Formats: sequence, C-alpha cells, structure tokens
Amino acid sequence: MNKLSPSILAADFSKLGEEVKKIDQAGAEYLHIDVMDGMFVPSISFGIPVIKSLRKKTSRVFDVHLMIEDPDRYIRDFADAGADIITVHYEACKHLHRTIQQIKECGKKVCVALNPATPVEVLEYVLDDLDMVLIMSVNPGFGGQKFIPFTLEKLRKLRHFISDRGMDIDIEVDGGVNLDNVEDIIKAGANIIVAGTAVFSGDKANNVKLFYDKMK
Amino acid sequence: MNKLSPSILAADFSKLGEEVKKIDQAGAEYLHIDVMDGMFVPSISFGIPVIKSLRKKTSRVFDVHLMIEDPDRYIRDFADAGADIITVHYEACKHLHRTIQQIKECGKKVCVALNPATPVEVLEYVLDDLDMVLIMSVNPGFGGQKFIPFTLEKLRKLRHFISDRGMDIDIEVDGGVNLDNVEDIIKAGANIIVAGTAVFSGDKANNVKLFYDKMK
Amino acid sequence: MNKLSPSILAADFSKLGEEVKKIDQAGAEYLHIDVMDGMFVPSISFGIPVIKSLRKKTSRVFDVHLMIEDPDRYIRDFADAGADIITVHYEACKHLHRTIQQIKECGKKVCVALNPATPVEVLEYVLDDLDMVLIMSVNPGFGGQKFIPFTLEKLRKLRHFISDRGMDIDIEVDGGVNLDNVEDIIKAGANIIVAGTAVFSGDKANNVKLFYDKMK
Amino acid sequence: MNKLSPSILAADFSKLGEEVKKIDQAGAEYLHIDVMDGMFVPSISFGIPVIKSLRKKTSRVFDVHLMIEDPDRYIRDFADAGADIITVHYEACKHLHRTIQQIKECGKKVCVALNPATPVEVLEYVLDDLDMVLIMSVNPGFGGQKFIPFTLEKLRKLRHFISDRGMDIDIEVDGGVNLDNVEDIIKAGANIIVAGTAVFSGDKANNVKLFYDKMK
Amino acid sequence: MNKLSPSILAADFSKLGEEVKKIDQAGAEYLHIDVMDGMFVPSISFGIPVIKSLRKKTSRVFDVHLMIEDPDRYIRDFADAGADIITVHYEACKHLHRTIQQIKECGKKVCVALNPATPVEVLEYVLDDLDMVLIMSVNPGFGGQKFIPFTLEKLRKLRHFISDRGMDIDIEVDGGVNLDNVEDIIKAGANIIVAGTAVFSGDKANNVKLFYDKMK
Amino acid sequence: MNKLSPSILAADFSKLGEEVKKIDQAGAEYLHIDVMDGMFVPSISFGIPVIKSLRKKTSRVFDVHLMIEDPDRYIRDFADAGADIITVHYEACKHLHRTIQQIKECGKKVCVALNPATPVEVLEYVLDDLDMVLIMSVNPGFGGQKFIPFTLEKLRKLRHFISDRGMDIDIEVDGGVNLDNVEDIIKAGANIIVAGTAVFSGDKANNVKLFYDKMK
Repeated sequence: MNKLSPSILAADFSKLGEEVKKIDQAGAEYLHIDVMDGMFVPSISFGIPVIKSLRKKTSRVFDVHLMIEDPDRYIRDFADAGADIITVHYEACKHLHRTIQQIKECGKKVCVALNPATPVEVLEYVLDDLDMVLIMSVNPGFGGQKFIPFTLEKLRKLRHFISDRGMDIDIEVDGGVNLDNVEDIIKAGANIIVAGTAVFSGDKANNVKLFYDKMK
Repeated sequence: MNKLSPSILAADFSKLGEEVKKIDQAGAEYLHIDVMDGMFVPSISFGIPVIKSLRKKTSRVFDVHLMIEDPDRYIRDFADAGADIITVHYEACKHLHRTIQQIKECGKKVCVALNPATPVEVLEYVLDDLDMVLIMSVNPGFGGQKFIPFTLEKLRKLRHFISDRGMDIDIEVDGGVNLDNVEDIIKAGANIIVAGTAVFSGDKANNVKLFYDKMK
Repeated sequence: MNKLSPSILAADFSKLGEEVKKIDQAGAEYLHIDVMDGMFVPSISFGIPVIKSLRKKTSRVFDVHLMIEDPDRYIRDFADAGADIITVHYEACKHLHRTIQQIKECGKKVCVALNPATPVEVLEYVLDDLDMVLIMSVNPGFGGQKFIPFTLEKLRKLRHFISDRGMDIDIEVDGGVNLDNVEDIIKAGANIIVAGTAVFSGDKANNVKLFYDKMK
Repeated sequence: MNKLSPSILAADFSKLGEEVKKIDQAGAEYLHIDVMDGMFVPSISFGIPVIKSLRKKTSRVFDVHLMIEDPDRYIRDFADAGADIITVHYEACKHLHRTIQQIKECGKKVCVALNPATPVEVLEYVLDDLDMVLIMSVNPGFGGQKFIPFTLEKLRKLRHFISDRGMDIDIEVDGGVNLDNVEDIIKAGANIIVAGTAVFSGDKANNVKLFYDKMK
Repeated sequence: MNKLSPSILAADFSKLGEEVKKIDQAGAEYLHIDVMDGMFVPSISFGIPVIKSLRKKTSRVFDVHLMIEDPDRYIRDFADAGADIITVHYEACKHLHRTIQQIKECGKKVCVALNPATPVEVLEYVLDDLDMVLIMSVNPGFGGQKFIPFTLEKLRKLRHFISDRGMDIDIEVDGGVNLDNVEDIIKAGANIIVAGTAVFSGDKANNVKLFYDKMK
Repeated sequence: MNKLSPSILAADFSKLGEEVKKIDQAGAEYLHIDVMDGMFVPSISFGIPVIKSLRKKTSRVFDVHLMIEDPDRYIRDFADAGADIITVHYEACKHLHRTIQQIKECGKKVCVALNPATPVEVLEYVLDDLDMVLIMSVNPGFGGQKFIPFTLEKLRKLRHFISDRGMDIDIEVDGGVNLDNVEDIIKAGANIIVAGTAVFSGDKANNVKLFYDKMK
C-alpha cells in the first residue's frame, strides 16, 4: 500500500507539535525527519532534541533520514530518540553492510538512500537486508528543489530488480514530489512518498487528503 | 548590566514558539541557540530552519553558539537566518582573525568561545575585535552537565585582563549555571548568563524572575 | 571533429604566455589546464592566478581539469577566472549530480573525469547532463607517465554506450598520449586529445601540426 | 640588514620569468613564493612546476611560503624544486619540531609562520631552531589585503623575545605592506619585507628602489 | 591448489613466534596478518614492529591485509618489513590503479579486498593486474564474527568472471570460516582460506590438518 | 620515588611475554605501551590485541601511551583491555577536559603528553585533574631517536609549576633516554622514565638494574 511521509523540513519549527498533529490527524502514516550535519550535505537542519520532543506527540512512524557523515556514530542515539525507520546514505558509509546490521540490532527498520547520480547496482548484496530503499529525486541538503526527471527511470529499474528477485521492499522517493507528479512516481514503482512544501504550505489536512486521492 | 540568555537546548521542541514567548515576556533579553553538528561536538542539535522559524516570533537578541567545525562555511547563512551575535569556537578555527572579520562584515556582534581546557591567553590578539567572550563551564555537546569549579578562576583572570586594557567586552558563561552558583559566577566576572534546564524546567517565567533577582 | 588540448603542465612556467601563444597559433583549439591541490592527487600544480593571467592572452577554449577534493567549493572561482569547460573527478564528488548542475549554472560546459580503475557505469544517470567525459589513461598527479593500454577497451565501451543512446558527448583522453598511439586512441572513440610533453618539448608548432595530421 | 621579498602572487603569470628578472635586476634579494592548496587557505595558487621553471631564471633566494595542510608530505619536493627557505604554518603542523628538523635535513633554511591571531609564545621551544619567523599581517589566502595594525605590537614583542635571548633570527612580515607603512614595520622589528602589489604594479624596478630607500 | 592462511589476529600475542611456528610446522603456507588503524576499521590491531619480529621466525608467505585509510602512505614500509602479498581495500583507495602499481614496484604480490557490500564489478579494469582478490565474508575490524551467507554467491560470480576471461587469479576468503563451511566456500570458488579462531583455539597443528583434509 | 617504564616498542614481538617477564622480574614497575595509529604519528605499532595478551602475563602497571587521533573513540576499549594509566596527546584532543574525565570515569589514571614544541602552559586548567604529564623528548612515531636537549629546560619549568601549586603529579619522559642522560633528566624534574632500546638491547635484567642505580 502507498503511504505518505510528510517531511518536517518544510514545517514551522516554532509550533512543530501542532503542525505534526494536523498531518497526523489527516492520516499521514509516516513522518519524514531530515537530519543534516553540514558535512555530508551543505546545511545543518536538526537532530536528536527535535526527535525526542516530537516522539511524545505522535505514534506515527518516524522515518529518520540521516544525511550525515559516518552514521554509525549516531545510530544508537537516533534509535533511542524514537526513530522507527533509520535511513543512511550509501555515499556516507564505508562499511555499508555493518551499518545496516547495526540498525537491525537496534530493532529498527533499515533503509539505504541513493543520491541522484548513484546507480542502483551498488545495493546488489545488501538489498535482501533492507526494508526500504530511498531514491533521492533531488540532491539532498535543501527543501524546495525540483524533481529530477530521470528518477522515474531509476525507480522502474529498481522496482523490476526487486520484483524479479521476489523481494518485498518499499521504495521511497524524496525531493520535488507534488500533486502533479505523484501519480507518475507511483506508477514508476515508488510506494512511500516524501513531500515537504506540497504538504505543509496552505491547508495541511487537505493537502494530505489530495495526496492520498492521487496515490490510491 | 547583567543579562540572561536561556538556552533553548532545554526547551520542548514541539512548541518552541510558545516556550520562547514565555521567557521573552518574563524579561530574558537574549536567547541562547546551541548549534551542534555532530563533528565538533558529539551531538547534532539543530540549525538554520529552527532559527528562521523562531525569528518570526520574538525580537530578543539571538545569541547563536556555533559548536561546528570550520564555521566560516556557514556564517553568512546564520547571519541571514536571524542571528544577532555569532559565537565561534577557538578550537574549531584555523584562521580565527578572518572568521571574526567575516562575522563583523555580516553586521553581527562577534564572540569567541573557549573550551574548559583552553587558556584565555589564546585571545591576546583578537580580544580587541570581540564583543563578547564565551567561557565554557562544561565541555560542549550536551545539556544538563555540572558546572566545572575552576571556571571561576578563569573568569576572574579574563575579567582582569579585559579591565586592565580598558576594554568593554561582555563575558558569557555556559554550562551548569543555576540559582545556587549564579551569584559567584557574576562576582567572578561574567555578565551574560546562559541557563538551560534551570530556566526551562518548571515555571519558566518564575525561573527567569529568580535568576534576575540573583543577578542584580 | 577531433581536437587537441595541449596540457600546460608540460610548459615552461616562466614564459607561459609565449608558450601558449605558439600552440594557439599552430591551431590547437583547447588548452588543458591541470589544477592539482596536493590532497586529491599527490602534487600541487597551480590554480586561479595562472588561469587569470593566461585568459588575457588567448581566446582558445580553457579546458580546466580540477584534480581537487570536493570541487564544489571552487567552481564559481574557476568559472570567474576564465574556464570554458570545467572537469571534476567522479572520485572527488559525493553529490556528483549537484556538482554538475553548479557548473551548468555558471554557464560553463561540464565534464566528469574517471580514474583508470573506475568503471564507466558510474556515469549512468548523469551522462545526459555532460558535454564531455574525460577518460584518464594514467593516474592523475604527474606529467610524463605511460599510457595504460586497457584504456582503449574502456574508450570503446564508453563510445558504444554513448552512441547506443543517441547522445552527442565528447570523449577526452588524458595521459601518455603521443604521436605513436593517438590514432588508436581516436579509433577507440576519443575525440579530444590531451597531450603534454608530446606537444611542448621541441618545436611546439610542428608538434601540433603532426598531431592534427594523425588525428584527421 | 633589511631585505625585500617580492611576492610573485601579484605578478603576471603569463610572463613570470620576465617579471622576476626585473625585480631581480632592481636588487630584490628574495623572492616570496606563496604556495596555497585550497585546504589550509581558501585558494589554490601554485606549486612545484612554477618553482622549477623559475629556478632556472634567477639565483635569488627562493623564500617558499607553504600555506598547505600537513606540509611534511611535500617538504622534500619543494626542497628539490629549488626552495632556499621553507616556511610552514604553525597552525598546519601537529609535530612542529619534527617538521622543522625535516627542513633542516634537506639543507634548507627554516621559518615558521604565525597567523594574525596566533600568540608568539607558541614558538617558545622551537625558536632556537629557526632561521626566520614569518608574522602574517593579513590572514593568508589572498593578495591585496590591508595590513592589520596590531601586527606592529606583535613584531615588537617577538623582537624583544629574540633579543633578550641573544638569538639571531630574521623576522619577516607578509600582508598589506607598502611604502607608507614599511618604515614603521621595520622600526617594530621586522627585517624581511614581503610586498606584492606594491612591488609588481607599475614600474617594478622603481618600486623596488623606493622600498629600499625606506628600508635603509 | 588450495591454501590456508591462518590469521594471527586470533593468536596469543605474548608468544607469537611460538604460535606461528606451530602452524608453520603443521603445513600452513600463508600467514594472514591483519593490520588495522582504527580509522578505516573501528579497531587498532598491529603493524610494522610485529611483522618485522615475525619475519625472522618463519619463511612462510606473509599475506598482509591492510585495513587502513589511504594505504599508499605505508606500502613501502610494509614491503620492507617483510610482506610477500599486500592487500589493500577498494573502499580505502581513491586511485586504486596507482596503489596497485606501487605494490608491484615493491616487487610484492598484489591483492584487493572487497567489503561484503561491494560489488565485484568495481574491479573490472584492475583485475588483470591482480594476483589475488580478497572477498570479505564479514565486515572487517574484529575477529570471531559469523560468515555472511551471500558471500558464496559473490564467490561464484567472481570465479566465473575470472574463468571467463581466462585469468589465473587467487580468490581469498576472510571472516567466519570454519571446518563446517570451508568445503562450500571452496566449492564456490575460493582457493585461499583465512581462518583465525578456528585454527588458533585448541590444538593448532591438528586444526591445520583438519582444514587441509576438508580443503583437498 | 622514581620509576622505570620500559617501552615494549623496542622488544622482540615474537616473544613479548618472555621479554616482559624478564624486565618485570628485574623490578621495572611500569610497562610503557606505545599505541600508534598511522594517522596522528607516521607509523602503525599495535593496539588492543597485544595489550590483552600481555595483561595475562604480568601485574605491572600498564602505562598506555595513545599516539592516536581523537582518542575518545577508544578509551573504553583500552581501559577494558587492561590499561592502568592512559595517556592522550594534547595535540590530538579538541575537548581535552572531556577526554580526561572519560579516562577517570573508566577508573584509570590519567596523563597528558606534550610534543616537543608544545608549551607547558596549555595544561594550565587541567593539571589539577592529572596523575601524570608526559614530556616527549623526541617527536613521537619511532623508537631509537636522540634526546632533544631543550627538554631539560621544559622539565624544570613544569616541575616548578607543579611544586609552586603544591600539587602531586608525576612527570614522565619519553624519547632517547639512556644511562648517560637519565641522571640529568631526573635532576630536571622527571620521576617516571621511559626507555626502549636502552632496556631491551642486550641483558635486559642488568639494564633495568643499571637504570635503577642511576635513578636513585
């Protein structure tokens, strides 16, 4: 089933609990939490204290996207802070298989993110261990960027790769997704949709509803 | 005059605007904003998006403490996000004098922070350019640590150093400050007081009032 | 059409303008400018001031090959200094697609270089955005090395890859090219030829002419 | 005796040999060669190939200023390329005493540079091993910056420190030196003067002459 | 022919010479020497002094596995200390082809190791230059881990790749190998077997013998 | 009382237990264990597995000298492996005070080492927390170097500094110590003596005895 994972990067951080509550009530199953360290990506967003505070406000799935160098150092901390899914970037891991096992040992679901330029073949030996793959449809680091069209082709390739092996793995897309392109994106193979501005600007509850109409 | 700079690291991030409003109304002139990148310090706190959202809610002085590697990369961004004072760590800067000039060129007040182990003499040639020095009374990276006693001696030394040269520079203290030790700290030479848990736990407005009573 | 890009790494730096003028008059369309930072490669060659000085002396295409770590930091500077084509190394970029967009936003042609050991498949998703691919036929860092024979096979593979997709992308070769092997290299699929010692030692104008005879 | 060390960073790199010849004939004893790697300082200037080419054109003292990270890696290369004096930055060396010994083992004169913010006391245990100290009067990385006034005080302090110990060590100044301030700088204790734009713009030979008039 | 390469990581370091002598006499042809630097892998094991001391005690093949960052810096040292085969990690090399040539120039056999998650295709252009490929069947850094089952599939793929090209290259396996799985591992394509605990715990000579019985 | 801390870097690693037993029986109270990571110093010596194996052979004080980058990462591991004293380098720590507390929290004695060029004043605020200071009398990284004479002056300064404050802190010296200079070194203020070659070459038991004769 297709699910929406609104990215709080686009939320108003002065009233995050309230914002999250609205999209929670509107039915968004996931919450996409963009952690940026200013080293792996050229921006510092937020980390542990924000997640801890939000964890008390909602029981939705915390889909924590670590855009940080050498994530092994902090996996235990993010697990303890309340993450349900922990995503690490292929480009930030030297020992990807170990990093994946660390997440599993924390009892969390595990996802690997691929930058736009990264081929899906790099996941050949770890796919079996993953709950989800995150296909970046913009370069990570900022909200509000435009969807990169070749991502559709990449989604199709990855979906076939997964289906051919008889696996059951979610494919998430992050970057520039909106009501105009979400149907194509789902058709191409994604089933978890990250959306930031498209959810948080204007009537949040209605935005969620409109997304679900398109995502059926 | 002595001032209080409540550290939002101890606030509830799900309703940050509301928390800030309370201490603002209670009279705290500054807001201490602890930016941590997970590289200079072993924790990732928050960065630009949090500052931008808060900037719309209060006109109090944003006292932005950059606990990040090589801060030159992000000074312009923090200035644009709404910082009034920008603090960089001596231990994170290779070209400290240049970093200081960069902050000044952004039209912001400039402060240098010293870790507990760092002697004050390292500031010999830049003191004249500073609006404030931040003496860390715990090792940066986490809230809720205990005040390191030798900090008092360091404060006295720095205050004499500044007075002897006829300078007018604020001295801020950060780490483990509470109602029991704040008078000693001010007596030793500090005039800007950072407090986290001691302000944000319990009745925030009353906490601020109690601090000001002790800080007269 | 095939073009020659003489590498100034082999020139006499005490009279660079004069050297460049000679090969310019002899008809070399490009000038290959090898920027090395001593971090990505084990040598420091030259950077901005050399390019700026040369830019006033010739209108030939400046083919700037950045053998530097994390090139995003300097792309704008090299564009402003007078580069026409900017080449970055796949092995030096974490967010290759973003780096490529940055070069395009500067209004410059964009090329990605691959080290001898790097497979061409890593370019799968960015090829469409490139004006040129640079196949290194030696390990970058020094002039005067010998051409690595398996490069021919790699050139053929890349040329087929490009042709099969109906793309129009230049393929440049850099390292150990001389009058003896240039015909094979062009036959294998390259159309932009970097040559250093083979152009700058002896009669430069004649060397250029001899290359063009072979490259027809 | 006071000496002039014109910085080729301000020269025209398309005819470097010619430029150097002019200031050589005008009597400048040293040639200041600013090597920047884009890591220690935010600019890439030039390195080995430029020095090698110039070495054939003049026998003046090559005063090579390494603004690079971890200079140990390249000391042998710069010695072989023709350096007479090798300057490393205090801020770039973890094992400063070893780096100094390495330069001496290459048979070269050794100098340590201090950034504007760095106190002179850091040299306490190595001063005896040095032929020269370089006091930066701007932050390294670019030509054309303004002289930082507190440098005069730092020069006086270092000169006293050296005299008190009965040592014979040169003090060089680099950054923003011109005909208006050079007398004060020499009076404060410097005896080797780096000048870039002030020497290379306009009539180079006359500039050198004017400097020497002031430096008597 | 199949060979055993006992890993001294599992030996008693207080009597290493004696331990090595036992397995030497029992017929193990190789000695697997696990060098870890605490940077590439999260543990510091041992380096040069250990190898030098052992070199005097046995003439068996020293199979030195460098789990270190940027191995180029130390290849010459390990060659001089007594290594016969030098293995570097694909994940630790930016200029893999150059690193391989450096090992060959030292007159040593050359091997590249692949982490569990790394596809074999990354070796496409260097395979011809290798004497051996090391397939990690655990994530490097510690002894005593469990064999990762998908390694068998990877071994088969690499063996076919090598056979199809008519090459003669050894395939070594390292991690969690024991008497229960060694036959499957050899059947899958490996011919050099690393074993630590399985050789060094209990009767070493007998363990070696049992391995050879299974490895026929 | 003065004590000897023989450095096992100079021992025969093929029979380390036996070597250690000899000097243990001869009365050396400490064992100096030189851990080098190839990053902080240009050599990889040994780490955890060596310490663990030796710990079973002797109850002498393990004086573990960490010549490694960012030692916080491994303090717990070295404490668990059997260290009694843990020494970190001032030059390798950004948050020196925190690192010191970490060692104390492991229940171990704590020492800070200073490179030859580093002034003793950098310890001003942490001295009170230390059990020992290690004054390097050579640049760390290799055995067999010559004692740097200015170390004697540094020892005197540090000993006065400590005495003036009425503290009780050991001063250890490491590098080039032998029977000819040990008396001067002790007279200058050191009371823990590291010796490598001078203890381990020739008759170890007699060497230890000769040292103690001189160290009375």
